[in-house]
Amino acid sequence: MTEQPRFELYSYWRTSATYRVRVALALKGVARRERNVDVDAGEQRSEAFLKLNPLGGLPVLVDLQAPGAAPLTQSLAILEFLEESYPTPALLPAGLHARARVRSIAGMCTVDTHPLITPRVRKYLAGEGRFDDAAWRAWQTHWFGTGLRAVEQRLAGDAATGTYCHGETVSLADICLASIIAVMRVFKIEVAGIPTVDRIMAACEQLEAFRQAEPRRQAGAPPA
Amino acid sequence: MTEQPRFELYSYWRTSATYRVRVALALKGVARRERNVDVDAGEQRSEAFLKLNPLGGLPVLVDLQAPGAAPLTQSLAILEFLEESYPTPALLPAGLHARARVRSIAGMCTVDTHPLITPRVRKYLAGEGRFDDAAWRAWQTHWFGTGLRAVEQRLAGDAATGTYCHGETVSLADICLASIIAVMRVFKIEVAGIPTVDRIMAACEQLEAFRQAEPRRQAGAPPA
Repeated sequence: MTEQPRFELYSYWRTSATYRVRVALALKGVARRERNVDVDAGEQRSEAFLKLNPLGGLPVLVDLQAPGAAPLTQSLAILEFLEESYPTPALLPAGLHARARVRSIAGMCTVDTHPLITPRVRKYLAGEGRFDDAAWRAWQTHWFGTGLRAVEQRLAGDAATGTYCHGETVSLADICLASIIAVMRVFKIEVAGIPTVDRIMAACEQLEAFRQAEPRRQAGAPPA
Repeated sequence: MTEQPRFELYSYWRTSATYRVRVALALKGVARRERNVDVDAGEQRSEAFLKLNPLGGLPVLVDLQAPGAAPLTQSLAILEFLEESYPTPALLPAGLHARARVRSIAGMCTVDTHPLITPRVRKYLAGEGRFDDAAWRAWQTHWFGTGLRAVEQRLAGDAATGTYCHGETVSLADICLASIIAVMRVFKIEVAGIPTVDRIMAACEQLEAFRQAEPRRQAGAPPA
């Protein structure tokens, strides 16, 4: 008999924000079942999905143990929810300044970088902005590069940086950083000159929680 | 004799992210002194400021009681730091699902909306993107409108919405929503058809913590 999962995760194979939640659930050993929402086919605008999340965004996490509770949205809010619900293993360090450092690095990825390269931004730029494919790629490359070089500058030479972004323990900072790298790979974009980021990502890839979350390994992903 | 403030806040009059920190400090009754960084004059790229924050972003919060600690950056990380450092009055509710709701609404403002209308995005679009002033204004109007209509849809008709975004107590959701409205006013952009947002903002404006944070009341603001 299989244990009933606590959560249902509405996801799409390549979305960065869903990746974060997948990794956090796996690190905390919390069972989920996933429901694929085909963003390329517009399923996030379907009547059935809009009933769940009227804003049409992914991921959505449904707490099956809390019937009647609103579905959880926004990946940072979900990560904090999981951290408070399952404190062990901790994905935030103990000290207040250390926690702020981890959340700040996470914000550099999820607030400063990722929102600029989402499908809705692409849609606007390709339409009203008259960006052709090359202009969109230049835009992607610019913001991924800007974000990752900033993270590199912050991590390199900071004594608080260790095997992972913060010391010797995986944290929300690693999850959010890896979520940027994961979509960059989907789009085949490379950023050079970020050795600290590269080293930390290699350490994360040693962990099954990160590996199982890779976009190409998800249901609905196209063949490589 | 005046009490020595605990924090030094590096700020600029109109930045949305600084506004959030100002309101939170005031709600919690924590003293600060502000240092003006003239973004329009490029002071965030000065040698002196880059020593403090090599990434050149605002706000930066320096904890004067923790000499040697790295300056705090990223407004969401700072808000969580203040919440953990000064739990009363709480800016997050007690229940885990309620906390997730507040953080999710905050994310709709600070992650989904604000990063798209920052000066660095304007610079790219005006340069590589060849956006003229009208195209930039259309971009701003599109993303402010998209974000605020989504927040409106979420708040309206949800029993968890009260005088404020979440019940009868000011929370991080109100602060982040107000931070979007504050910069919209600076840019003289209006979004119609958001009565719940308008009602909640009117309630926040009754509070001195929100009023004292208004961009136009800060040092360095141009005459109205």
